[in-house]
Amino acid sequence: MDMGAPIKAYMTRKLIGVGPDDTVKRACEVMVEFDIGSLVVVEEGRVIGFFTKSDIIRRVVIPGLPNDTPVREIMSRELITVSANTPVREVLDLMAKKGVKHMLIEEGGEIVGIFSLSDLLTASRRRLETAIAAE
Amino acid sequence: MDMGAPIKAYMTRKLIGVGPDDTVKRACEVMVEFDIGSLVVVEEGRVIGFFTKSDIIRRVVIPGLPNDTPVREIMSRELITVSANTPVREVLDLMAKKGVKHMLIEEGGEIVGIFSLSDLLTASRRRLETAIAAE
Repeated sequence: MDMGAPIKAYMTRKLIGVGPDDTVKRACEVMVEFDIGSLVVVEEGRVIGFFTKSDIIRRVVIPGLPNDTPVREIMSRELITVSANTPVREVLDLMAKKGVKHMLIEEGGEIVGIFSLSDLLTASRRRLETAIAAE
Repeated sequence: MDMGAPIKAYMTRKLIGVGPDDTVKRACEVMVEFDIGSLVVVEEGRVIGFFTKSDIIRRVVIPGLPNDTPVREIMSRELITVSANTPVREVLDLMAKKGVKHMLIEEGGEIVGIFSLSDLLTASRRRLETAIAAE
């Protein structure tokens, strides 16, 4: 992994989203189906919210909310984003400092991708394969 | 990160656990308090189970179980472990293939630690700091 490369080289471009009126149950099913730990909430083509499995643990399971609660009630409305050109090292620093496992990537005022610790796993293994191929 | 080093060089030795009769709510509170994505289940000093936030999503939120369900009903009894001497590269491979974000580490027939994607983040940043210090 090239720590100086822009994060867009490693991010996932395919954002998976649900609507604000979808239920927590439906959102969880989507997370399981796509094997992802976070979802964006999309309304009229615009990202209006974001939440992770941790948010579901904190905001649904602990207070005992029913699983038909609409996601708009538990999503984060304040989106933490970094620019697509931010070097990987800065993004990793920010994630560690904020204690988050997902970071939304923004370019030209729009959310264009996401970087998660799973992408870090993929990148670490890719680096490894490159190193082995070069031997 | 030295891909050939044994995983024990990077694992977290402090295992955080709950009892089998603790509730899912209590387990979630422990996860939030310690900012971790998985817990071991301990009975009479022995690890008898394991579960992650993903397991809670799948086995509690989606089926709509109450948050006072005891963790013994939702934990995984089959523990996936690797030996403490397994090289990092093999552990990362295994995690990617199995699609898991946590791996229990075993030595001498006992669970002695855990390696998670958060440890990968820590290791990546440590490598970076070392590289910068050497400049």
